[in-house]
Amino acid sequence: MIRDIISAQNSLVKAAAELKMKKYRTQREEFLVEGVRSVQEVLTSGWGIIEVFFADAIGTETVAAMFASSNVPCYHVSQAIIERLTDTKTPQGIVAVVKMQNTTITDLAGLSGLLLVLDEVRDPGNVGTIIRTADAAGACGVVLLQDCADVYSPKVVRATMGSIFHLPIVIDVDKARFCQWCAQENWSLWVSSLEGGTDIYDIAWEAKVAVTMGNEANGASAQMLKAAGKKVYIPMQGKAESLNVAIAAGVFLFEGAHKQPLATK
Amino acid sequence: MIRDIISAQNSLVKAAAELKMKKYRTQREEFLVEGVRSVQEVLTSGWGIIEVFFADAIGTETVAAMFASSNVPCYHVSQAIIERLTDTKTPQGIVAVVKMQNTTITDLAGLSGLLLVLDEVRDPGNVGTIIRTADAAGACGVVLLQDCADVYSPKVVRATMGSIFHLPIVIDVDKARFCQWCAQENWSLWVSSLEGGTDIYDIAWEAKVAVTMGNEANGASAQMLKAAGKKVYIPMQGKAESLNVAIAAGVFLFEGAHKQPLATK
Repeated sequence: MIRDIISAQNSLVKAAAELKMKKYRTQREEFLVEGVRSVQEVLTSGWGIIEVFFADAIGTETVAAMFASSNVPCYHVSQAIIERLTDTKTPQGIVAVVKMQNTTITDLAGLSGLLLVLDEVRDPGNVGTIIRTADAAGACGVVLLQDCADVYSPKVVRATMGSIFHLPIVIDVDKARFCQWCAQENWSLWVSSLEGGTDIYDIAWEAKVAVTMGNEANGASAQMLKAAGKKVYIPMQGKAESLNVAIAAGVFLFEGAHKQPLATK
Repeated sequence: MIRDIISAQNSLVKAAAELKMKKYRTQREEFLVEGVRSVQEVLTSGWGIIEVFFADAIGTETVAAMFASSNVPCYHVSQAIIERLTDTKTPQGIVAVVKMQNTTITDLAGLSGLLLVLDEVRDPGNVGTIIRTADAAGACGVVLLQDCADVYSPKVVRATMGSIFHLPIVIDVDKARFCQWCAQENWSLWVSSLEGGTDIYDIAWEAKVAVTMGNEANGASAQMLKAAGKKVYIPMQGKAESLNVAIAAGVFLFEGAHKQPLATK
């Protein structure tokens, strides 16, 4: 179904624009996805699309073809309205309102491999890049403990480059509850730490490892460091004091992809 | 020497503010460094500081102590003037004008280990993070071929977290000239490629390896791919199409740090 919306004051446009704010995303369990490729990823991955706004830059025929086999309402709007729905400088001209999937840690039952855990990682670009990297490395999921950047913010969604739709992501997980769950489900809980522990290249990779990355400025929280079965570090040789958290996550993820017992993948 | 500058129209302030633009940086071979820790890094590393602007947030005593053993002119200015000299939202209150070091590839003679090469890497955050990571992994230097982001832009300098002062960085290098130099100096030239080649985990690390990372959207240039002694890839397992270039560089850098013959470090 394609129809025109002319006014930026239209109530559907207004409601969609509100999803740029976390308050409304949480209330309605909906978020915005921008760009042709990302909207295509939503369709392919089977997440629920509530409605789509598109401008002339995309074209009615393209949109009609994309949504031929669905009955998602598609609204043809001005580029100015698209700009109201995004925070990118030069939006491509298509924005979808997508239903959140409320994955919980119990949904991770039966998985094995590397589970990436974020502990107060606050920068949206870092969170998005880490999710993209976890996908590329074949991690079985990403867990965001309480107080991380909001996965559904436009910046994070964009930085994941579609990977947010590829692997299970659990958000707002209570730390104590998560540590308890790891013990119950036989996940080895490792925490990345600058202050020593085991060298990542000397460690024995087990079949189920949850690797925790800490806050950009302060590293992992005291609670997670205390709960860790192992503290693990990436050996550094130069004069830099630390690594960017997304880079450190990348090194852990690919070392795991390379070393973890194959049978578990 | 500490003295007050009150007017934002002061010619020294105006000249320093111009260094936010590449044109003036190139002309005068000077650039801006912001923040207490970064300015401290400049002092420690011995790069030439031309002058310093600081506001009350830092304090005259701190600045006097930092520059006790030098005769760098230090100007006490308003926070508004500091804001004119930076593009950060909440600047710390200290900005130094620093002299560029014009390192050339001939300065890399005698080095061995991993030399990281950037081929049209355009995002300042990526370039800065890669330099920081190269430092942390103990790379012997970073070469930016023509058409990369400007290393001396405030965004890159900030993202390096001081690492720009820790290892040799050569900029604006002609591609043909660089490939010729690699051959002369016995550097194995590897180029990161998504389109096959050798798996990074199967490769034999030699004592002198120049690893080339390509553009964010298009990968390495045809010229570098053609010149490469080896095309190398990071094996991916998930549904992501590619890695962020800084993450890929991180995986190469730490794999090299771990596998390259120790004698060469």
